[in-house]
Amino acid sequence: MKKCIILGSTGSIGTSSLDVIKSNSGHFRAVGLSAGSSVGKMCEQVLEFKPEAVSMSDSGAAYELRERVGHHTMVYEGIEGMIEMIRSLDADAVINGLVGSVGVLPTLTALEYDKDVLLANKETMVMAGRLVIEAAARFKKRIVPIDSEMSAIYQCLKGESSKTLKRLILTASGGPFVDYSAEKLKFVTVKQALNHPTWSMGVKNTIDSATMMNKGLEVIEARWLFNVPGTEIDVTIHRDSIAHSLVEFIDGSLIAQLSKPDMRLAIQYAMTDPERLQSPYGGIDFSSPFSLTFEPPDFDRFPCLALAYEALERGGTAPAALNGANERAVEAFVNGNITFMDIPETIRRVIENHRFIEEPNIDDLITTDLEAKRFTSVLVES
Amino acid sequence: MKKCIILGSTGSIGTSSLDVIKSNSGHFRAVGLSAGSSVGKMCEQVLEFKPEAVSMSDSGAAYELRERVGHHTMVYEGIEGMIEMIRSLDADAVINGLVGSVGVLPTLTALEYDKDVLLANKETMVMAGRLVIEAAARFKKRIVPIDSEMSAIYQCLKGESSKTLKRLILTASGGPFVDYSAEKLKFVTVKQALNHPTWSMGVKNTIDSATMMNKGLEVIEARWLFNVPGTEIDVTIHRDSIAHSLVEFIDGSLIAQLSKPDMRLAIQYAMTDPERLQSPYGGIDFSSPFSLTFEPPDFDRFPCLALAYEALERGGTAPAALNGANERAVEAFVNGNITFMDIPETIRRVIENHRFIEEPNIDDLITTDLEAKRFTSVLVES
Repeated sequence: MKKCIILGSTGSIGTSSLDVIKSNSGHFRAVGLSAGSSVGKMCEQVLEFKPEAVSMSDSGAAYELRERVGHHTMVYEGIEGMIEMIRSLDADAVINGLVGSVGVLPTLTALEYDKDVLLANKETMVMAGRLVIEAAARFKKRIVPIDSEMSAIYQCLKGESSKTLKRLILTASGGPFVDYSAEKLKFVTVKQALNHPTWSMGVKNTIDSATMMNKGLEVIEARWLFNVPGTEIDVTIHRDSIAHSLVEFIDGSLIAQLSKPDMRLAIQYAMTDPERLQSPYGGIDFSSPFSLTFEPPDFDRFPCLALAYEALERGGTAPAALNGANERAVEAFVNGNITFMDIPETIRRVIENHRFIEEPNIDDLITTDLEAKRFTSVLVES
Repeated sequence: MKKCIILGSTGSIGTSSLDVIKSNSGHFRAVGLSAGSSVGKMCEQVLEFKPEAVSMSDSGAAYELRERVGHHTMVYEGIEGMIEMIRSLDADAVINGLVGSVGVLPTLTALEYDKDVLLANKETMVMAGRLVIEAAARFKKRIVPIDSEMSAIYQCLKGESSKTLKRLILTASGGPFVDYSAEKLKFVTVKQALNHPTWSMGVKNTIDSATMMNKGLEVIEARWLFNVPGTEIDVTIHRDSIAHSLVEFIDGSLIAQLSKPDMRLAIQYAMTDPERLQSPYGGIDFSSPFSLTFEPPDFDRFPCLALAYEALERGGTAPAALNGANERAVEAFVNGNITFMDIPETIRRVIENHRFIEEPNIDDLITTDLEAKRFTSVLVES
């Protein structure tokens, strides 16, 4: 029985993870849950999964939850409470389904307190990839990705020696605007941007998919997860969302992972790695004709992708600045303060003007994140 | 330095294998070569690769070769000579690039005499798959496929536990007649059948590709190589010849192997497994758009495929009868004795009328092969 703590349990990764646990109740148990302020949802999850502890980022929500379930379940409060819960609970793995830079400290804490990290929170690796990988090595714990593209690469690399890896090819759906002209992209509305063709995700991830920043963040994430320089990571537009990424080896052979799009498949895989368990997800029907298409991405129409490659190339605090600026710029777009094409423009200005540090420690990265967000707020309000 | 014996060295698998050895001369050495009657080609290979011994099936050819290179190189003669060469030479692996049922005994001999078998000769597994797999286990030697589809599956299974395997999906180019109507297939000429869309192979394999018997033989081969029942092996028409086969696991995840079609890639992989070496083959260009298509095969228009599934299901000597009948029927078609659609019809009659043995030993299988060929000859001449 594998004991899991789920961070962001009421979000899309969290609820999918609980689905997987429910379907495999003989194999997994949720011993800890964390959420922001969704008391109602959390209350239901506590009643159904009976975790030992939960944590709510919002103090009011924590108070209300204590009233409703507190006599059976320990309720932690705030980010510090979530960190404390990770430290205290006896668990094998932490499923990090948090969104944004808030995911970094829980990841580092989990590794330090003897827990594997099943990671959906790509911002963790974008901000502090080098430090996270070093921590995993130091504490001899694993980081298993549960993002579908990263999981695909992870699966493709099974049984292969890392020195034979030549190139990663990340597939991207292209988002809802893949065919929009540069002119048309200027007038994209929030409603249009929130309409993703294949995956059902949270607001932040959906907008990132529309700008293709999600793929940029994944390029940076892949750089650290798989120890491959950015120059050897390519992106291909694959509208069908069936091939979830590919790996090319030095002999010219490519290995790809495919399935119907369902994030529960990658979540379950991360929970069972290196084994596999029966599941109703995935599968592909070969009894009817189908085709898979691949096209190169357009860096001019989707400058967020180019920005991510540039930040990765520059290194140091640049990816953290990119990530912080992106989080705030996406909020500003959703709130109607800036246009769709202002997102990359704003991020570019923040990266160019941020206080660059070549070899940042975790405090430097957290500061970079905060400063990037603050500067972005100033830019979007001016 | 890995020492290899190449059976069928002047054929397409043989010359490709020697290409790979030439490109990686620091890693591999050809210590033995065998061919049928191509003295000229063999003479060139002896001068270039300086093997310790060679063998010619044809006695006259062996005599002529001895005259030309005999003072430097041991020249064996006949099938018995080839078997003797395999026994005598100190080598790590035998590359079996023979065509047809003649490949069975060399395979069994290689395993018994402490050599891995890198296998292109699918008829070996079709005829005697169970016995070959048992021999490999008994002598603790490996059978590594170098057929592109089997190699793909072999690569997709790396690092995976065999109990998590759910289904194999073999890709087939469909051959030159994939779009022909049943009516049009009746009037196919030998010249049309010898024109394969993507792969350059010998005559037998090219006709097998046109009838889709090649895929049927691979289904049977895969059953033994990967220990999967025929009911869990599917075939998909994939005209692009880029995805060389796929494996579906119990969790619904599929792993595929892809590359530009070049048989040297699979040959090199078999020689380096589980490692990989740099190569100029394979690779896929993602800088231009492309698509991969998959369609179900038509068992009515391509009855050879259905026959293979039926023979596998029946078991015992049925696959050996199928294989023997097919070899002779293909010859009869190439010689103009029967029509294209007579090939499956003839094979069906041979299987139905052969002396069925449920649990054949190797002598039974060789007898089945001979009798099937003899009966086929009678049928095609009547």
